[in-house]
Amino acid sequence: MLRTRLTEAFGLRHPVISAPMALAAGGRLAAAVSRAGGLGMIGGGYADPDWTAREFAEAGNEGIGCGFITWSLARNPEALEIALSRAPRALFLSFGDPAPFAPAIEAAGVPLICQVQTLADAKAALDAGASVLVAQGSEAGGHGERRATMTLVPEVADLLARRAPEVLLCAAGGIADGRGLAAALSLGADGAVIGTRFWASEEALAAPGLKQAALEATGDDTLRTRTVDVVRGRDWPDRFDIRVIRNAFTDRWHGDLAGLKAQAGEVAEAWGKAAAAGDATLANPIVGEATGLLHDLPPAAEILERLIAETEAVLARTAALRA
Amino acid sequence: MLRTRLTEAFGLRHPVISAPMALAAGGRLAAAVSRAGGLGMIGGGYADPDWTAREFAEAGNEGIGCGFITWSLARNPEALEIALSRAPRALFLSFGDPAPFAPAIEAAGVPLICQVQTLADAKAALDAGASVLVAQGSEAGGHGERRATMTLVPEVADLLARRAPEVLLCAAGGIADGRGLAAALSLGADGAVIGTRFWASEEALAAPGLKQAALEATGDDTLRTRTVDVVRGRDWPDRFDIRVIRNAFTDRWHGDLAGLKAQAGEVAEAWGKAAAAGDATLANPIVGEATGLLHDLPPAAEILERLIAETEAVLARTAALRA
Ligand SMILES: Cc1cc2nc3c(=O)[nH]c(=O)nc-3n(C[C@H](O)[C@H](O)[C@H](O)COP(=O)(O)O)c2cc1C
Ligand SMILES: Cc1cc2nc3c(=O)[nH]c(=O)nc-3n(C[C@H](O)[C@H](O)[C@H](O)COP(=O)(O)O)c2cc1C
Repeated sequence: MLRTRLTEAFGLRHPVISAPMALAAGGRLAAAVSRAGGLGMIGGGYADPDWTAREFAEAGNEGIGCGFITWSLARNPEALEIALSRAPRALFLSFGDPAPFAPAIEAAGVPLICQVQTLADAKAALDAGASVLVAQGSEAGGHGERRATMTLVPEVADLLARRAPEVLLCAAGGIADGRGLAAALSLGADGAVIGTRFWASEEALAAPGLKQAALEATGDDTLRTRTVDVVRGRDWPDRFDIRVIRNAFTDRWHGDLAGLKAQAGEVAEAWGKAAAAGDATLANPIVGEATGLLHDLPPAAEILERLIAETEAVLARTAALRA
Repeated sequence: MLRTRLTEAFGLRHPVISAPMALAAGGRLAAAVSRAGGLGMIGGGYADPDWTAREFAEAGNEGIGCGFITWSLARNPEALEIALSRAPRALFLSFGDPAPFAPAIEAAGVPLICQVQTLADAKAALDAGASVLVAQGSEAGGHGERRATMTLVPEVADLLARRAPEVLLCAAGGIADGRGLAAALSLGADGAVIGTRFWASEEALAAPGLKQAALEATGDDTLRTRTVDVVRGRDWPDRFDIRVIRNAFTDRWHGDLAGLKAQAGEVAEAWGKAAAAGDATLANPIVGEATGLLHDLPPAAEILERLIAETEAVLARTAALRA
């Protein structure tokens, strides 16, 4: 057992939040994480109201949270109403200005978690009234920006110490085992938001072939790219790109976005089919550098149990280095 | 006091190596670090024989190590002979294939430290016979590649556990205080290689105006770029770029390398003068994201003393999270 300000504030057994991975983190995964003592999140992502309602239902009576991609929520604000009507344990916003949504979330009495990619984002999230900041490094799976977890976490911790010591801090990006969680706690985080490791779980909604490819990849095999959003027709703001495992598709198009846009329709259909079928030679598994630390696809509860046991062992080992 | 395999192997009081920062880490800095219980390195960098000889002399009788940029050493191999003739405590190679130089280093009975940027590099360094690997993340100051410290360190640790458990591991990139060193130890490193924090020391060879600019910058203000090598006429291999603090020079040219090359002569002279004069509006301080964690320019010994005290405090704090 690890006790931090995060476990206290949310009544958790473990200082771990499963990332609200768009479409991949459904109600089953979120409920499994919450049941095992973490804070489970569904990945409301692009804010499709039907998906959101369905996956809340899938989680049953287990208390879970919900995340949205902020710039996309701005186009589909009704998804927020659905989420708030389900008594979520937290609302998680990332990739855009949270300020327009903060009043409704606060009025519902729901804690607002803001994922930030820069120190400037962190200041904006504080202004919006977030009660938890998640400092996300570039090594993370999925969308993100340039800063690394190793420096962003302590720099945001210093900001909080000066401006808002009551606000909690989580680290995200590259945390997949007890070494990573112990490192996050060392850097000043109260807990971790974990994506890639839970993506490679039994419960995550991704095709088995893609999960298998993630087990075989090393961290050297990922890259940040715009190709995957072009082919999916996702209109992301310039500052964010997505980390995925490279393959023949990114090898071909990463350096030729204009060419890809010119034939996007055709390629898109094939890419979409490959994603559904789990063909990782064409569709890219959406995971981070931590893919190089994965060796199996256990249920979420087992991931959490191992993670905590490992973290406790790491903290005991490092404490003993003091001579 | 922290005791690790690194302190044991090199007879250090602290598990810290000062980075062999090209031209910035001279004999005075290296000697100060060694005297204070770390392993001090001079930054032989591009392998100028005269610079190398002079800075070894500057270190006097203090035992220090020396680093070279491997691809540049291949063009100036006589610098290695000079270094080896000064009985260095270690030879540190980065950015290129270490294999051609390993036999001479081994024959001299000097430990070979190889800095690696990917898992693939780590395998090559083992093949070359390195006794210490330094896993360098992209958040680092100076040259580097894409992987982050947070995932590269544990992934290389797993490689060593399988293939060469006797080889030591250090983390580099983003480590500037006790939180970072504690994180590095958690991730599985035996110690840390620290650049940016020692660059902002009394002893480092950089103009006061540049050091001042680093204190004022946040981690958001750095970027990886090729402009600085173009303007300095340094012919770096494609895979490596350099992390610096952004300014009007990088704002103007980062997106227009061809334009910069077309007028490189002219701009180069002005940039060089600005670097010597400490004018950070034109010349870029060469530091990493950890610049956002710096608030002063103390002597190296004080940096080391604080770092260790902070690390001990962090390790005590995190150990106490176990309930
Ligand atoms: C498949 C996948 C989808 C993701 N989708 C979202 C998302 O919709 N919204 C969001 O805030 N973060 C998303 N993320 C990022 C996570 O919130 C988190 O920052 C990241 O997973 C942490 O790094 P890690 O993958 O190394 O654990 C996603 C991550 C992955 C792997
Ligand atoms: C000014 C500067 C110059 C550097 N020059 C070299 C070099 O010549 N050779 C080398 O191996 N590494 C060099 N590095 C990289 C360091 O070895 C190390 O990886 C890095 O400083 C660690 O990250 P940090 O700056 O966040 O501490 C340099 C770093 C800085 C800041």
